[in-house]
This record gives sequence, C-alpha cells and structure tokens, in this order.
Amino acid sequence: MAETTRNTPWRLAQRAERLNPSVIREILKATEQPGIVSLAGGLPSPDSFPVQAMREACARVLADAPHEALQYAASEGFGPLREWVVAQLAATGLAATASQVLITSGSQQGLDLVGKMLIDAGSRVAVEAPTYLGALQAFAPYEPDFVTVDCDDEGPLPQALGAAAGARFLYLLPNFQNPSGRCMGAQRRLALAEQASRLGLPLVEDNPYGELWFDAPPPPPVAAAAAGGAIYLGSFSKVLAPGLRLGYVVAPPALFPKLLQAKQAADLHTPGFNQRVAYEVIRSGLLDTHLPQVRARYKAQRDAMRAALQLHLPPGCRTTVPAGGMFFWVELPEGLDASALLPQAVAAGVAYVPGSPFFSGAARANTLRLSFVTVAPALIEQGVAALGQVLAGALEKDFA
Amino acid sequence: MAETTRNTPWRLAQRAERLNPSVIREILKATEQPGIVSLAGGLPSPDSFPVQAMREACARVLADAPHEALQYAASEGFGPLREWVVAQLAATGLAATASQVLITSGSQQGLDLVGKMLIDAGSRVAVEAPTYLGALQAFAPYEPDFVTVDCDDEGPLPQALGAAAGARFLYLLPNFQNPSGRCMGAQRRLALAEQASRLGLPLVEDNPYGELWFDAPPPPPVAAAAAGGAIYLGSFSKVLAPGLRLGYVVAPPALFPKLLQAKQAADLHTPGFNQRVAYEVIRSGLLDTHLPQVRARYKAQRDAMRAALQLHLPPGCRTTVPAGGMFFWVELPEGLDASALLPQAVAAGVAYVPGSPFFSGAARANTLRLSFVTVAPALIEQGVAALGQVLAGALEKDFA
Repeated sequence: MAETTRNTPWRLAQRAERLNPSVIREILKATEQPGIVSLAGGLPSPDSFPVQAMREACARVLADAPHEALQYAASEGFGPLREWVVAQLAATGLAATASQVLITSGSQQGLDLVGKMLIDAGSRVAVEAPTYLGALQAFAPYEPDFVTVDCDDEGPLPQALGAAAGARFLYLLPNFQNPSGRCMGAQRRLALAEQASRLGLPLVEDNPYGELWFDAPPPPPVAAAAAGGAIYLGSFSKVLAPGLRLGYVVAPPALFPKLLQAKQAADLHTPGFNQRVAYEVIRSGLLDTHLPQVRARYKAQRDAMRAALQLHLPPGCRTTVPAGGMFFWVELPEGLDASALLPQAVAAGVAYVPGSPFFSGAARANTLRLSFVTVAPALIEQGVAALGQVLAGALEKDFA
Repeated sequence: MAETTRNTPWRLAQRAERLNPSVIREILKATEQPGIVSLAGGLPSPDSFPVQAMREACARVLADAPHEALQYAASEGFGPLREWVVAQLAATGLAATASQVLITSGSQQGLDLVGKMLIDAGSRVAVEAPTYLGALQAFAPYEPDFVTVDCDDEGPLPQALGAAAGARFLYLLPNFQNPSGRCMGAQRRLALAEQASRLGLPLVEDNPYGELWFDAPPPPPVAAAAAGGAIYLGSFSKVLAPGLRLGYVVAPPALFPKLLQAKQAADLHTPGFNQRVAYEVIRSGLLDTHLPQVRARYKAQRDAMRAALQLHLPPGCRTTVPAGGMFFWVELPEGLDASALLPQAVAAGVAYVPGSPFFSGAARANTLRLSFVTVAPALIEQGVAALGQVLAGALEKDFA
C-alpha cells in the first residue's frame, strides 16, 4: 500500500465533513495517566460485570447450539431474546410485539439506523439541550439541521415543542439523561407525548439507563403514551456488559421493515453468539439478583459524590442530585469555562468532561459532567476535592 | 405503541427508497422446507466451525481478562488482532501497518463504512458484472449511480476501465468471486492496478474467500500493486465462523481517520469479547491445521458438484470450475430465465439463487448461482440431478 498519502485519488463524501474526532475520546486518552482520578469516562464499573454467569453461558451455548450460535443468523435478532425484550418492556408499561424488536450492535447502532432511515441532508432533527453526544455523532453524518428544544430540570418543555415543528423527530432521553442526570416525571411525559401527537412530531426515545434507578423505577416510557408512534431504543450495556455490544430498537410496524433492511445492509446481523450468551445469562433471572447489586453499588457512589460535591464545590456552583444513572451535571458560575479549566484540573489530578460537546447549538461553556460509576468512593472524594480547589482558584482569579 | 400505522407522522429519508427486501433472503426463507436440497445459501458448513477451540478460547478470555473483554473498547479494534491481520496480509504480499487496520463487525460493515465515507448521492461507483449482492446493498443507501465494467472469466478487463472514469472507486472481488466463482490471474491484477492508477481510479478490494483455495493460493492482492492506493477488506467469517461477525478494513493513512470516525458513530466498536476470543483461537496457530481441513472438505464438495454438473446439466449450459471459494456460476442457454424457473426447481426439490440480483445494471436472466459448501456430496448430486431435469424440461418446451 505504497504512496497512498501523496497524490491521493480519493474523494470523500460530503457527509464525511460532519464527522470529527470525538472530543471525549481525546479527553479520555489524555487522562489515562496513572495518578489521575478520571470522573470523565462513562464506563460502567467492571466489578459489576457478571463474569461467572458469562462463563457458564458461553459453555452452555457452545455445548447446546454451537452450530447455530456460530452460523449466519436472522437480521432481526435471536427470537427468544426479542421475546425477552417484549416482556421487559411490558413491565415498564410499554406494549410491543417481538416483530417490532430489532436486535442491534449496541444501542449506538440503533441511533445510526434511525438516522440513516429518517434523516435527509437539511432535515430538521430536534434534540434536548444538553443531549447525548453519541446521538449527535450518529445523526450528524446524515447532515441534519439540529434544532434545540428548551428544557428545564425534567427535560423538554411541552410548550417549547413548537420549535421542533416539521422536524423528522424529537430525540429524547428521559431516564437519568447522559449528560445531565435528569429524569422526566410522569406528568411531563404525558404532556410531552400529547403535545408531540398534536404537532405530528415523531419521537425517538432512548433508554440506556432506565434500569439504574436508586430509589424507585422511572415512570413509564414516553413512547407508551405516544399516540403518533415512537421509536424506542434500549441497551444491554449498562445492565450486563458493554463489551457484548447488544442493544435493540422497537419500531412502529410501518417503519420496522426499513430499519431491518438498513440493518442487513450495515452488518447483516448482530453476532448470534453474543445474543445467545446474553439470553442464557438473563433467562435464569440473573438480573433479579444482579441489578439490585449494581443499583446499590452505584447509589453508594452517587452518595459519595453528592457528599463530596457539597463539601468541596465553591459557592455559585449548581448541581441536582441524580436519582439514577451514572452522572452528575455541574453548572459553574457564569464566566468560568470548563474546557479552558480542564488542563488545570488534570494537572491537579482529576479529569471530567466539559459540557460543551453535549450541545448541538449554543453551548454552555460553564457546564461539566462527572461520572460516579467508574471509580470507588474514596477516589471520588479525592477527585472532587481536587476539582473544588481548581474551581475555587479560578473563581478567586476571575473575581479578584 | 398504538395507532402507529394509520396517520403516521413518519417521513422516510430519500435513501430509504434504495433499500429493498433481500431477494436472496426471501428465496432462502421459501426454500427452508424439509426435503428441499438448498444449493442457494452462502452459508459455510457448520461442521467446519472450530467449536472446541472456541470453547477453550472463551474460557481463557473470561479467566485472563474478563473486565477488559466485557468493557467498552477502542474503536480501532483489539491491538493484537490488528497485528495478526498485518502478518497475514504480509504473507499474501500486501504490506500494511496495524495503524491502517480497522476491525469491523463483519466485512459487510466495512462495505457500509466505505460507502458512507466515499459516496454522495449521484456519485459513480464502478462494479464488476456480476458482483457481490451484499456490496450493492451496502452502497445503495448512499445513492450512487452504479457503472458496470466489462468482464471476462477473470474479472474486469483493463481496457474497459475507461467506463469507470470519474467513479469514486472500483469495487473488486478478485478471489473466487461471489457469485461467479472466478479468480483473477496475476497478470490481470497487475494490469488492472496499473490502468486504475493511470486513470486515478481508487480501488476497493474485497477478499472474503481468499483462504478457501483448493490447489494453490491466489496471486497477491490487486491492492499490493495499486500505486494510487486501495482499500482492502477481509473477513473471519469463512475461516473461523460468521456468527462472531468479525472482519476488517485496511485503509490508506489519509482515509483511516474518517473510516474510524464513521465506525465510532455506527456502533462505537466491534465486541471486544469476540475479538479476544477470535485472537485466542488463532494465535496458537489453529488455522494452520484448521484451514487445510476446510479446504479439503470444500474441494471434495466442489468435485462432487463438478461431476454432477457434467452428468446432469443439459447441453448448452456453460460453467467454469472454481479453484476455490463456495460457488459455481451457471449460464443457461439464452432464452431460459432462472428466476422464472425457480418455483419449478423448488417443486422438484432443489433451490438455487437466480443470477439477476448480482447485476447492478442489465441483468442476465439466464444465470444462476450454486453453493457447494453447505450440503454434503450425496445431496449435491441429488440436487443437481433435479436441477438438470427441470432445465432439460424447460429446454424441450422452449425449443419444441
């Protein structure tokens, strides 16, 4: 493969311009040094992975159905796993049939397929502010114009949905949102669904964190009340393990065939081996004992971070306590720039993700995201203390 | 999810029109009845899967590196697996570095990412006639205008490349092509690479079948001689097992970052667990003993099909003997339509894939594809005999 960089004959598609190196990836690389407490990553605690159950499940699948597990498989996904998803959704209040469930290679792929089938260049796509960066990255190559809907601590305001008029869809993450940690209340969900239906605005609801609640499960999905129809996305990454790359899309019957064809074109099917192993792990009811342990672990770490933030954040910072999920969202006093402060924080031994990349439009530079799931309570305390010192120093300098 | 099909607010992207239900999938479904000898599928023989080695590899990965294998991982792929790919390619005559290797979710995903980064609506994309249907399906949503390059029994004619002038790339499958079974000779490869370089025509070379040679390995890749640069795709589906969904793209340094960003946006990364398990299976040199067994099995089945075709095909049919891979390509006498004859064939107990879907432009209705890898020699003989009777009957009627 000689001489490929000079006189290159390659011409990129226009959409390639909409892709950029992930800011977060670059931050994570920079902070993977020993001695840095990283509150930046969104990685689940590896201690939460059900390794022993995985071991048994792999052995069982390769003993009982090795040829089926290792052969090409249906693009829709493994039947029993699709049925399992339906039962789980029913328990949350969302009625669907297995024929509406498409197993994907992580819910990130679900976002890609949705973008591929619904977004033309110049289409309006409505999002929250802030919103999940991975969704912006999945949709961006299809060249939409992003429209931001005004939000409060619960998410989008129903009376603000007019801004999304004519959009191909509104992308929502109602449960313990990444990055804000916020959770939408039951009344807000109903009001949003009703207003979206009135406006003829389709909904794409993403729920990677819903099972990670600390005190009570979140209200039923917005999709359950969406008379106009909704696409619903879920993931096994946070309840089992992300390294399996398993997620799913639940689509209205009118849309399902197109998403399925897009899935076939994209990678034929999600690994059958992984689907069968995951199903073996969960069919026995492992999640009934496993999830309470994960919730208890993350709740304790949430509590540790809450206490540390109360103790160490300088006055003028604002944060709300997440009732589940993985993240605290911190608003610094106006005038502070979280991106500009990151090198100082890393020098002081702590890393975070600045909030700016999570805004599709005007970014709020004085915001940042802290993850409480990856490191243990003692390190959380240490990291937040370092962050507090950096912020206090910046405030002194700023307002001196 | 009520009332989603009536008064639907969903509006599809224009590219969704370019996706259709897979003809082959529909055929495969129709022929999955007991009593039908299916020579239609492109499924590797499940008896060729290294199940015991997989068992040991799963156990080892979950014992040695469970947290790493089950956690989020780098979008580029697992380092040692990328290095292994480089060593394999070097042995075929293709020089590359690990930094050029992107691990993908099957080589189908490689085709999707290549299309996503290189094709605008209306871009010309040059293909062989016939060509791999999965590539047409992967590229189609990006709305190219396909251009066909004239071919003979080795593939594209160098003097015909002018038809591809201005194309974003020429897609080539030089080794035991799906569907034609043809293999490009060494001289043709060099001539093609030279002519493409002269025209400034980028090459995308796909090699899923190269390891399935029966008498001698195929010549070095076209990419090895492509001064203007080439993208090269490979797969673990035919040498290990398709159910793992593992493939790779080797890209010129100037293109790699964009393909990597597209990969991140599409599914973050290919399952780390699968990459580590595959690497465990192959690092020990299993393929050195495994591949000769697979080759011997498929060669015997190729021989069985050759003998059956000689015995049972009526006069006027043309076929060439593939030197590797999985397929015979049959040209029927002009006037016979393989699609129209399929229901009769299925009624007679045999299924095949008509050749038409493999043409991006004018389809040759009198062609069909037969796979010799999925069923055993006795059934191959039975299926081909049934096919011969159907064809003989059609010829009698046609020319009576």
